[in-house]
Amino acid sequence: MGREVDVTSTTNGAVAPHVRDDELDAMRRALHLAARGPAVDPNPRVGCVLLRDGTTIGEGWHAGAGTAHAEVVALADARARGHEVRGATAVVTLEPCAHTGRTGPCARALLDAGVARVVIAVADPNPGAAGGADVLRAAGVPVVTDVLADEGRAVLGAWLPAVRRGRPFVTLKTATTLDGRVAAADGSSRWITSPVARRHAHELRAEVDAIVVGTGTALRDDPSLTARTAAGDLAGHQPLRVVVGHRDVPPDARLRGPGGELVTVRTHDPAQVLAALEARGVRHALVEGGATLAAAFLRAGLVDEVHAYVAPVLLGSGPAAVADLGVTTIADAVRLEPVSVLPLGPDVLVVATPVREA
Amino acid sequence: MGREVDVTSTTNGAVAPHVRDDELDAMRRALHLAARGPAVDPNPRVGCVLLRDGTTIGEGWHAGAGTAHAEVVALADARARGHEVRGATAVVTLEPCAHTGRTGPCARALLDAGVARVVIAVADPNPGAAGGADVLRAAGVPVVTDVLADEGRAVLGAWLPAVRRGRPFVTLKTATTLDGRVAAADGSSRWITSPVARRHAHELRAEVDAIVVGTGTALRDDPSLTARTAAGDLAGHQPLRVVVGHRDVPPDARLRGPGGELVTVRTHDPAQVLAALEARGVRHALVEGGATLAAAFLRAGLVDEVHAYVAPVLLGSGPAAVADLGVTTIADAVRLEPVSVLPLGPDVLVVATPVREA
Repeated sequence: MGREVDVTSTTNGAVAPHVRDDELDAMRRALHLAARGPAVDPNPRVGCVLLRDGTTIGEGWHAGAGTAHAEVVALADARARGHEVRGATAVVTLEPCAHTGRTGPCARALLDAGVARVVIAVADPNPGAAGGADVLRAAGVPVVTDVLADEGRAVLGAWLPAVRRGRPFVTLKTATTLDGRVAAADGSSRWITSPVARRHAHELRAEVDAIVVGTGTALRDDPSLTARTAAGDLAGHQPLRVVVGHRDVPPDARLRGPGGELVTVRTHDPAQVLAALEARGVRHALVEGGATLAAAFLRAGLVDEVHAYVAPVLLGSGPAAVADLGVTTIADAVRLEPVSVLPLGPDVLVVATPVREA
Repeated sequence: MGREVDVTSTTNGAVAPHVRDDELDAMRRALHLAARGPAVDPNPRVGCVLLRDGTTIGEGWHAGAGTAHAEVVALADARARGHEVRGATAVVTLEPCAHTGRTGPCARALLDAGVARVVIAVADPNPGAAGGADVLRAAGVPVVTDVLADEGRAVLGAWLPAVRRGRPFVTLKTATTLDGRVAAADGSSRWITSPVARRHAHELRAEVDAIVVGTGTALRDDPSLTARTAAGDLAGHQPLRVVVGHRDVPPDARLRGPGGELVTVRTHDPAQVLAALEARGVRHALVEGGATLAAAFLRAGLVDEVHAYVAPVLLGSGPAAVADLGVTTIADAVRLEPVSVLPLGPDVLVVATPVREA
């Protein structure tokens, strides 16, 4: 049995009270298991470890929408290994759900199994799923929350803010010269950024659910909007290819070639675009252009994160990355908070989040 | 006495043949002394150490134009300390001059003093001063060059490329939003970059000989173009304030207030601007704007280094950092090679050098 750690509970969840060393170790293992789940999925990545007398008797992770939840997998694993689950402690990276989805509610499954204690990293922000901790507590089961919560949030990625906001998490990507051009005066832009930066951008595409462009970009650039491997092949996961606007994508467009499903959203309202994507289970949308669409998302306050690739190139003329924002004076500029600065070959990737007004 | 190091001579000067450990140590000391010289001066920063039997008998550095050269200072130092300089080894960071300037030629002074061996970091690229090594060798004194040459070049800073090119070294500074704007649509730009980045920019100003702007910037922004300390006071060194163009600077302009001397160059030709600055002993010129002047220097191939401060801000409209470069297609873009990427508070400074065509 691990030593009892007596730490002060905090509201921001950095440390949790009365969590044992063996439970902390089990949470680290559960986080590791959670990361085995699919990075791109409507459902969150969750891991679960069942402890009895400080020993792991079962473990599991969620393998994506339509498969069993982590808690159910862990219970089955323990039983398959011949262990009694009654009286065990369930250590789980996300609050067990209380709703009945494609699988039964996990809080119910834990109660039915006779679990005696539950340790949780991150509370479930989903209005349709939260309350599992309350269900357990109401049944007399002690529940400890916010254990390694930062690590838990990291594993959940865009899923957590998306569920909190009730819409996909939106990353706006730009790729510009040092003087802010996305193309030369004649529209040519291959290539402003380096192969290293483009490789990085393809890795991001492979981690999102949808790539979003306006019809202007779709018609002018005829992009493929695929996620490709370093070798140039299609990656295993292909995001939805979403074209926003009223014009039709031509029959011979690359967007109709190999890659993710083509989705046309006939509106200019970013909120409507996100509602349509939310309805399709999209958690993370990548807005890639053009300038008009970028400006529309920024004006609507619907950009959560900016990925700005900046190349050491000067053009002196050519289109910009962001169209008119209705900003005429510096005090009204859209201010961002930098998250990271990453040199990529000769280029730099600045990741930053818009500063929301209080 | 130090051990004799037998290394292969290389043309790029990374290592030098037959240099002794005590001579390497003396060169490190000489480099340290050189750095005591003024960072801003028409003359180079040079240090000199005199060795006899592995022991330092004299040392000196050049304290700026109009004062004695490092070799002469070191010889005087040795004599003042009662040492015989005949037969000593002179370790000096820059090839001793062979010309007669405001002081006599140093190669002659070393010969007259009976120095028996000379160890040099960097060959003098100055057409009017070079040849000191040849003068010494012709008189039968062994000369070793390229000892810690990289470190020697670093101490010389902009002086070395300026003398090589026969004109001031030119740094182009830009300060833009992530979408490449230097101001909002109404011209307001205070402030796009953070206090940390502006502090850094003032440090650069204090290290250059001249700040250069066009009359458009001078008239529109009414800048001071001073180098200021963190406390907001004028720094000890103030660069020349150079205004390029045909329009007059108004009598009440801030450019006529406290700060460096105001110099007006009535031309639009960057080569003429640099010739005028070269004639005034300028080694390092900082071109700060506006877009037209930046484009003129870039088009003329007269930018040696770009300092691009990029702030995590989006404006969607407003003027750009660089005006028309005559580039219409991506293949003709001005490509730069990055030197460094430095996060400065929320901003990023990208330092890069234009790639010269072969």
